Amino acid sequence: MNLADTPSPPYYVVIFTSLRQPGDDAAYAAMAEKMRQLAAEQEGFLGMESARNDVGITVSYWKDPAAIRAWKNHVEHVAARRLGREKWYSRFIVRVARVEKEYRFDRSDEAM
Amino acid sequence: MNLADTPSPPYYVVIFTSLRQPGDDAAYAAMAEKMRQLAAEQEGFLGMESARNDVGITVSYWKDPAAIRAWKNHVEHVAARRLGREKWYSRFIVRVARVEKEYRFDRSDEAM
Repeated sequence: MNLADTPSPPYYVVIFTSLRQPGDDAAYAAMAEKMRQLAAEQEGFLGMESARNDVGITVSYWKDPAAIRAWKNHVEHVAARRLGREKWYSRFIVRVARVEKEYRFDRSDEAM
Repeated sequence: MNLADTPSPPYYVVIFTSLRQPGDDAAYAAMAEKMRQLAAEQEGFLGMESARNDVGITVSYWKDPAAIRAWKNHVEHVAARRLGREKWYSRFIVRVARVEKEYRFDRSDEAM
């Protein structure tokens, strides 16, 4: 996995942070992977980054709020979110934010 | 580590996503922990969440852009960021965004 190559701001971000309910790891991993693939196919999707230790963090980038709403209402995503509340998460927070500034560092640029 | 108990929006977020340069893990972990503690002492700090697998993601929440600027210019943070560019990261992106909406789920609320 690499960093998301987003365009110049402004664009939008959904920050999903969560604590897992123990168990059901294989089914959870399969659904998470399916949702990653499905999100990437949506209109207005710009990229995604994800990591989990105690806390899981998934950051997805979108062209505008309309793209975020459309993904929120996607029928397979709605079903996955219901399972998330029923089984997979003990706690989560979804934050929607407007990216205003961006700064990048790439070691391979420095060497040039 | 738990999720960050941020107040109602609006507030600001710094999303720091990175790829590590291999090696120097103990020194890196010590500096990361020191920066977490120091950030938490700053005026306008609202919380932080962090995870790393291939990609590292640290999300810190702040009252306003002035609080973010002050932390950016903190002398120990400036020194840590220089070491980050010199040694610890092969790539990173810093995104500053304004949180507009938030949605929370807590299983213990559901049971009540």
